[in-house]
Amino acid sequence: MARKELGPRSLEVARAVAAMIDGLPRAVIGCSGGPDSLALALGAEWAGRRTGTRIVGVIVDHRLQEGSAQVAVRAAQTLDARGIDARVVAVDIPTRRDGQSYEGGPEAAARDARREALSQVAGTDPVLLGHTLDDQAETVLLGLARGSGATSLAGIRPRAGRFWHPLLGIRRATTVAACREWGVTPWQDPQNADPVFLRSRVRHETMPVLESQLGPGIAEALARTASLLQADEEILDAATADWLTAHGVDPAVPEGSRLPLRPLAAAPTGLARRVVKAWLDAAGVRATFAHVEAVRGLCRSQGGSGVDLPGVRVTRRGHELILTSAPGL
Amino acid sequence: MARKELGPRSLEVARAVAAMIDGLPRAVIGCSGGPDSLALALGAEWAGRRTGTRIVGVIVDHRLQEGSAQVAVRAAQTLDARGIDARVVAVDIPTRRDGQSYEGGPEAAARDARREALSQVAGTDPVLLGHTLDDQAETVLLGLARGSGATSLAGIRPRAGRFWHPLLGIRRATTVAACREWGVTPWQDPQNADPVFLRSRVRHETMPVLESQLGPGIAEALARTASLLQADEEILDAATADWLTAHGVDPAVPEGSRLPLRPLAAAPTGLARRVVKAWLDAAGVRATFAHVEAVRGLCRSQGGSGVDLPGVRVTRRGHELILTSAPGL
Repeated sequence: MARKELGPRSLEVARAVAAMIDGLPRAVIGCSGGPDSLALALGAEWAGRRTGTRIVGVIVDHRLQEGSAQVAVRAAQTLDARGIDARVVAVDIPTRRDGQSYEGGPEAAARDARREALSQVAGTDPVLLGHTLDDQAETVLLGLARGSGATSLAGIRPRAGRFWHPLLGIRRATTVAACREWGVTPWQDPQNADPVFLRSRVRHETMPVLESQLGPGIAEALARTASLLQADEEILDAATADWLTAHGVDPAVPEGSRLPLRPLAAAPTGLARRVVKAWLDAAGVRATFAHVEAVRGLCRSQGGSGVDLPGVRVTRRGHELILTSAPGL
Repeated sequence: MARKELGPRSLEVARAVAAMIDGLPRAVIGCSGGPDSLALALGAEWAGRRTGTRIVGVIVDHRLQEGSAQVAVRAAQTLDARGIDARVVAVDIPTRRDGQSYEGGPEAAARDARREALSQVAGTDPVLLGHTLDDQAETVLLGLARGSGATSLAGIRPRAGRFWHPLLGIRRATTVAACREWGVTPWQDPQNADPVFLRSRVRHETMPVLESQLGPGIAEALARTASLLQADEEILDAATADWLTAHGVDPAVPEGSRLPLRPLAAAPTGLARRVVKAWLDAAGVRATFAHVEAVRGLCRSQGGSGVDLPGVRVTRRGHELILTSAPGL
């Protein structure tokens, strides 16, 4: 295949990237060497030549699997051979944080370390990641299995802060086909097929069953649900921010921050939950549904006087809830 | 078992009903004779004696299956033997409406006819229906398979107008066990096991697979998601109503009703979708996502001048969208 003539699948990938990076001087591509992120990097190279965007490919070596350095170097060579400025960044994965086991387990620790490394290379430029429509569908299904609310079910945002996801509308199979068209051989992460991981079981077992029982198009349907919920989240976030402003709460000042009790008790349940969640989020607490409900419970007269959450304590004092650092931290 | 001593499962059902009918002078129970609605009726009888609520059991004979009259009479006799005022109402299911095939097919026609018959007996009193937590979970899953938004995924509301659902927190297996404790034999609707129906496949095939692959508790997780989304819907409905009021739109006047174009185009996508949906709903249009998006498309200059929807036409005129009856109706 001639260098400039893209096949139909690689063109689909490249155009999706071009639509997102248009106007950017520089973008960093997070690349594992797998089909999604390899197609993303090659699509970004094509797109960047048209949009005038400088593309930097970053391969993070997590040093968790045997031979990870070789995998990383090989991915960097593949990008380099296609004219992409590529670099390998090795990271150390912390197993503990704040003196406790890493919240979310080793996968969360690896993800946070990877994102930190990508952010450092990116500076103020965005980081493009290769999540596909299938990743989105799996995320929705995993959220459902946990009984999550809209914020989780809305899944991966196209732009989540500095991390951008241009391939959310593209099937995983398309990235595999695009790599074939580009003549590159992606790395297959053995963890992706390991049924010890819930996401891997969802991918290889649950999704095919749903597809066969509920009819084809289930991945697209789940992704559409995510997109609809994202649009709702925008309204709900605005309603939450309005409530906080109207009641003089600045969640950016966590220590000693106060939440007025009576308006909270009077707010519709959904709004009260989101207000409490936003208040705790701003204090750096990764609040679960149970945490939020425990704090809301303080609005009731028989609800007790205080709740201990990871790292903080919420106390009822007079007509207010008060958030303080937990003793001993 | 002594009449007054309830077993643990029947007590669970009866208490759920009591919590909902407390304070009501009279309630109508929609009963098919199946385990859910039979347990509901018997639970209501127990609850009604404590809350002072008169219970009327109504068995709707849809006359669609061979022997439906006998099934209905048998259910009425079961209720009657337990001291419940029971009556059978036979209905004719229309196959066409407004000169067209019945929207939603024969199941929707049967449901609408059944609800109409129950409403007539109820007058201003509520109608209790036996939908369980499993029905809720299946509803969420069916909504996902269609790629629905929050309004559908929020599932069955505890109080949906006059139709109340006291058993949404109770597993189907609990109603089966409750019937056994009460010493009654429920009717098994053969349609519930017929894989020609999507809901039946979800019940008997999809849910067990999800349970085994994603871990137990998937039905409860789906039901919790529905409940969380219901709380969000309350906020989103209020935001939609606020928008309509702020822009002087009274959706209760469908014919000639106008929607201002520029504020609609300026509204966040999720809010604009809900505004259009509410506007069309008020005109009696069962608008799909595609209908809503077509109407929103009229906000764009290249979006054309009008859209035909079932029974109505939406036209762009000046700075407004105008809703009129479709020609020929």
